[in-house]
Amino acid sequence: MTYLDHAATTPMLPEAVTALTNALSTVGNASSLHTSGRRARRAVEEARESIAASLGARPSEVVFTSGGTEADNLAVKGVHWARKGRNRVLVSAIEHHAVLDAADWLREHAGADVTFLEVDDFGRVHADTLRAAIAEDPDAVSLVSVMWANNEVGTVNPVRELAETCAEFGVPFHTDAVQAVGALPVDFAAAGPNAMTVSGHKVGGPYGVGALLLGRDVPCVPLAHGGGQEREVRSGTLDVPAIIAMAEAVRVAVDEREARARKLADLRDDLVRRVRAAVPSAIYNGDPGHTAMDGGPSRLPGNAHFTFPGCEGDSLLMLLDARGIECSTGSACTAGVAQPSHVLLGMGVDPKLARGSLRFSLGHTSTRQDVDALVAAIGPVVERAQSAGLAGLRRG
Amino acid sequence: MTYLDHAATTPMLPEAVTALTNALSTVGNASSLHTSGRRARRAVEEARESIAASLGARPSEVVFTSGGTEADNLAVKGVHWARKGRNRVLVSAIEHHAVLDAADWLREHAGADVTFLEVDDFGRVHADTLRAAIAEDPDAVSLVSVMWANNEVGTVNPVRELAETCAEFGVPFHTDAVQAVGALPVDFAAAGPNAMTVSGHKVGGPYGVGALLLGRDVPCVPLAHGGGQEREVRSGTLDVPAIIAMAEAVRVAVDEREARARKLADLRDDLVRRVRAAVPSAIYNGDPGHTAMDGGPSRLPGNAHFTFPGCEGDSLLMLLDARGIECSTGSACTAGVAQPSHVLLGMGVDPKLARGSLRFSLGHTSTRQDVDALVAAIGPVVERAQSAGLAGLRRG
Repeated sequence: MTYLDHAATTPMLPEAVTALTNALSTVGNASSLHTSGRRARRAVEEARESIAASLGARPSEVVFTSGGTEADNLAVKGVHWARKGRNRVLVSAIEHHAVLDAADWLREHAGADVTFLEVDDFGRVHADTLRAAIAEDPDAVSLVSVMWANNEVGTVNPVRELAETCAEFGVPFHTDAVQAVGALPVDFAAAGPNAMTVSGHKVGGPYGVGALLLGRDVPCVPLAHGGGQEREVRSGTLDVPAIIAMAEAVRVAVDEREARARKLADLRDDLVRRVRAAVPSAIYNGDPGHTAMDGGPSRLPGNAHFTFPGCEGDSLLMLLDARGIECSTGSACTAGVAQPSHVLLGMGVDPKLARGSLRFSLGHTSTRQDVDALVAAIGPVVERAQSAGLAGLRRG
Repeated sequence: MTYLDHAATTPMLPEAVTALTNALSTVGNASSLHTSGRRARRAVEEARESIAASLGARPSEVVFTSGGTEADNLAVKGVHWARKGRNRVLVSAIEHHAVLDAADWLREHAGADVTFLEVDDFGRVHADTLRAAIAEDPDAVSLVSVMWANNEVGTVNPVRELAETCAEFGVPFHTDAVQAVGALPVDFAAAGPNAMTVSGHKVGGPYGVGALLLGRDVPCVPLAHGGGQEREVRSGTLDVPAIIAMAEAVRVAVDEREARARKLADLRDDLVRRVRAAVPSAIYNGDPGHTAMDGGPSRLPGNAHFTFPGCEGDSLLMLLDARGIECSTGSACTAGVAQPSHVLLGMGVDPKLARGSLRFSLGHTSTRQDVDALVAAIGPVVERAQSAGLAGLRRG
């Protein structure tokens, strides 16, 4: 099987599997006062310190959640609720649905005034765009949320500039770094956001665990009330084994990031070159370059995203799947919904073209053979999908 | 080590460990359309069917969450939000904080009118109390939440009667069954609640997973928006291994419930008798009987809860811990906070007495030796804590 869907979920790192498995046999609720409870609590605090160290944060800034979606919702809704009287929510047009739909719900449910920040043709939010949007009424802004790197087309945002812009106006800035951790240099303190989302299973840790890095001075109303765990921001029994395993995955992913990113970018570049050679009509979406203005990468190293004109993305996906090649038409979270990607639409791609798109995402288990398999299959698959598309047109 | 804190968390059942461990090595986001994704989705749907079958629900009624706290918050806030224009929230005075604090937040944040239903001396909510409370203004009630069995004193509520009372008035009824599943006969359809909370780690499954059983006709606004998983009620990547393991734990716990409950009740009765013999001043809290009006048990089989007059619960806990015996002063979720239990206060216990209380909770690994160890230690420990208490009084 050729797995080219690491952005949806990536296999657990062996170190994380070992950490999780070992932790399963110990018992103790981290809120309990007895020896087992204190041991569990200690393990959680060590994991917290490890994650903080890996990501340039302070341990007290790490709030464990059940994953990226919860952390995004907590940041968007929680910070908005905490800043009563401020009604403007600014999010980029290419956010993950966990941010977009949370903002949208605030609009419907709480009458928030949501602005979708425009992106350029590569899917990037410019600091000028953000500045102009805030400036319309700075005092009314409850928060800004712009993702670190886009999950579909891999475009990296100028997070530091965006954070500085927000800081000028005293507006809290949240960034969803789910795809960035382990792929890009991510330093919470240096980049300057007030809140940042991290996911376990996207970095080689387990599902069902994530974190919101949250500055100590950023008020945030909880989504889940109860035991008062995690600075009273996120109640619920701490998932000790998953937290330990996530810390281990983050540690390994961050430690090995540079070498892995180089290897993935090489593989990806090879994939892009050879897919374009096999299918000359293919359009490569997202940032084609390799270096952003700040010297960092402008695109996720493992991301390749194409539009194949005249094809339906779902057909391409199924035809590749039949040949043992697994990829995605966009975010896994909205897969199954036959709608053009909001990310591509935000970038100005024609809706009809947008529907014929595929994302190939590489990760820690990817090999040259995976690329070879895709390259061998993509030509015939596109040809077949195009015939199906033409037949559909004739019927239509 | 003598672990008498199974109500806080219980060791994973071997079957659940095996299921979890096996699932760790497979990859695939259950929202992905390719073969791995569909395989993951199939495993989730099988787990959903298994849990539904174990608990008398339909598969489509099972909404997976990150645990009991999230499920409680989702039920209380989500159902309240969905019933716009209705402002009365009725919860029992002895709910878990996940329900109490969620209701309290609706009061503070959204101006809800929260009624705390009175309980009797055993901590039980009577249907008459509920009926009278609803009748004050039935059309304004958004929801009622009364737990199936109390986590501190083990008292079982007449869930079926309470559900019938709510149904008469057309009011949605939620019950937190976190302590009930695997300990009592729990049948969602037969008991008749509209929503029911289940936790993984309390039944021998993993942390970080739970479920809200939610009738198909019960509108519920999500806490977390995003990918639209779980009937659009709970977004977030499905935690496939944890869901599989939880289903296995629920299956085993429910299948073995009768035999285990009998064994635990015997052990518990022995524990109670011998603790009272060792400490004649000890007060046994909660329901002393064994059979409720409907013929079912009136108290959780593994629960024993005592007040030791003249002692501080924390001192007792620490002294027992020093002798290798682990228990709780109340719910683990509020442990560490030196406040008398709201459950005991709700039952009319004097606040000063309430602070000198301990919960011993038995579970699937409990043995006669555990009881022997406690019985041998409790006399000297209480004596020592009483001396400390007296010394404190003299200083005060």
